[in-house]
Amino acid sequence: MPRYKLILEYDGGPFVGWQHQENGASVQDVVEEAIVQFCGERATIYAAGRTDAGVHALGQVVHFDLEKEARPDKIRDALNYYLKPNPVSVLIAERVAPDFHARFGAVKRYYLYRIAARRSPPTLEHGHVWHVPVPLELEAMHKAAQELVGKHDFTTFRAAPCQAKSPVKTLFRFGVTRAGDEIHFNVSARSFLQHQVRSMVGTLKLVGEGKRTTRDVKDALEACDRTACGPVAPPEGLYLVRVEYEES
Amino acid sequence: MPRYKLILEYDGGPFVGWQHQENGASVQDVVEEAIVQFCGERATIYAAGRTDAGVHALGQVVHFDLEKEARPDKIRDALNYYLKPNPVSVLIAERVAPDFHARFGAVKRYYLYRIAARRSPPTLEHGHVWHVPVPLELEAMHKAAQELVGKHDFTTFRAAPCQAKSPVKTLFRFGVTRAGDEIHFNVSARSFLQHQVRSMVGTLKLVGEGKRTTRDVKDALEACDRTACGPVAPPEGLYLVRVEYEES
Repeated sequence: MPRYKLILEYDGGPFVGWQHQENGASVQDVVEEAIVQFCGERATIYAAGRTDAGVHALGQVVHFDLEKEARPDKIRDALNYYLKPNPVSVLIAERVAPDFHARFGAVKRYYLYRIAARRSPPTLEHGHVWHVPVPLELEAMHKAAQELVGKHDFTTFRAAPCQAKSPVKTLFRFGVTRAGDEIHFNVSARSFLQHQVRSMVGTLKLVGEGKRTTRDVKDALEACDRTACGPVAPPEGLYLVRVEYEES
Repeated sequence: MPRYKLILEYDGGPFVGWQHQENGASVQDVVEEAIVQFCGERATIYAAGRTDAGVHALGQVVHFDLEKEARPDKIRDALNYYLKPNPVSVLIAERVAPDFHARFGAVKRYYLYRIAARRSPPTLEHGHVWHVPVPLELEAMHKAAQELVGKHDFTTFRAAPCQAKSPVKTLFRFGVTRAGDEIHFNVSARSFLQHQVRSMVGTLKLVGEGKRTTRDVKDALEACDRTACGPVAPPEGLYLVRVEYEES
């Protein structure tokens, strides 16, 4: 059976998350349904990142097997046709080797977290940023973020129901930059714990407000204690940007 | 009576346009209603650009007079409170001289038109760009746009119901640039005719597709004939970006 890889963009707002759940439509559901409409096959889709409810993707990677042989650009256009009016779009479809695995083969995942750092509520970006109406110290947040780069036990920044075998992860990079009236957190790692990015951003936001120091963040990390984490940042500011594989 | 100036951002999607109409909520309606809720006064608001249904603003400028004296930052925050959940936001409020006029005092208006130039439908930017799934020649569009810069009779690019006294306008600049997978048209003038930007963009898009030449655009302009215009570009890609005044 041929294996196909898709790169997906989506607005996570209307979905219960990537993964199928009983309480509403997931991104997985609507993509699987589009595949059924395209070729009648009910494929199981594997995704690089199982994004939570409300989390967006600019470059989610998934794979699935079909009996049907079809040209990748035909698959892309047909799925986009059947995906309407859901805010899910196939950017790229390609045929991949039968051992390609979107989740287990990924070696680097990039996430972006966007804060609208201004007094006035966002309008055009409503639902696509975390609105923080109080001033935030950019340099302080960037400096504190560097304490999290590298290999650590991230128990402090891990959601209670997280199913990862180990809380030890390695952050490759964690940059905090200004982009117009937004603050962007760019973070990359081979993989992340559940709610890890939002937990880290929520804690760094306290640093930006002057309520925590770089030293506090280091202590929180070393405490390996969930209660040392700041309030988890809301999902609407988070984007799965890109996923890299060995061969790419 | 003190005169106040606001700089507004809004998502034009849910509105019938800036101006009050019988068939639905206008941006003007919701701002006037927020002022009533704030201070009980029904002010008349004058706007620099009477944006059409579906057209957005990053920096619309308006003015109005109130009996009430209030600190501008208090007005900004109060109006933003009462504007919810409408996607209209007061970025800046300030007290201005009694002879300031948002519409008649404006000396330069900047508009941006965004095309999503890619095969796949937009998701996060749905309603905020014109999706053109066919390839467009950037350089050809930029070159043709330069034929429109300067002082011309823009009858070809003017909507039938346009109420401007004269069809002669002066474009200061008309740049066409790439921004990721988008194409941006940045145009500025003292003032514009109704549908002028969308008419020009719609015509330039034909140039991008290779269906018209720079020469054709020049001929269309010189024809002073509405039927020489290409299909008008849809409103969702258009933004009123900024308005300048003599004193600024």
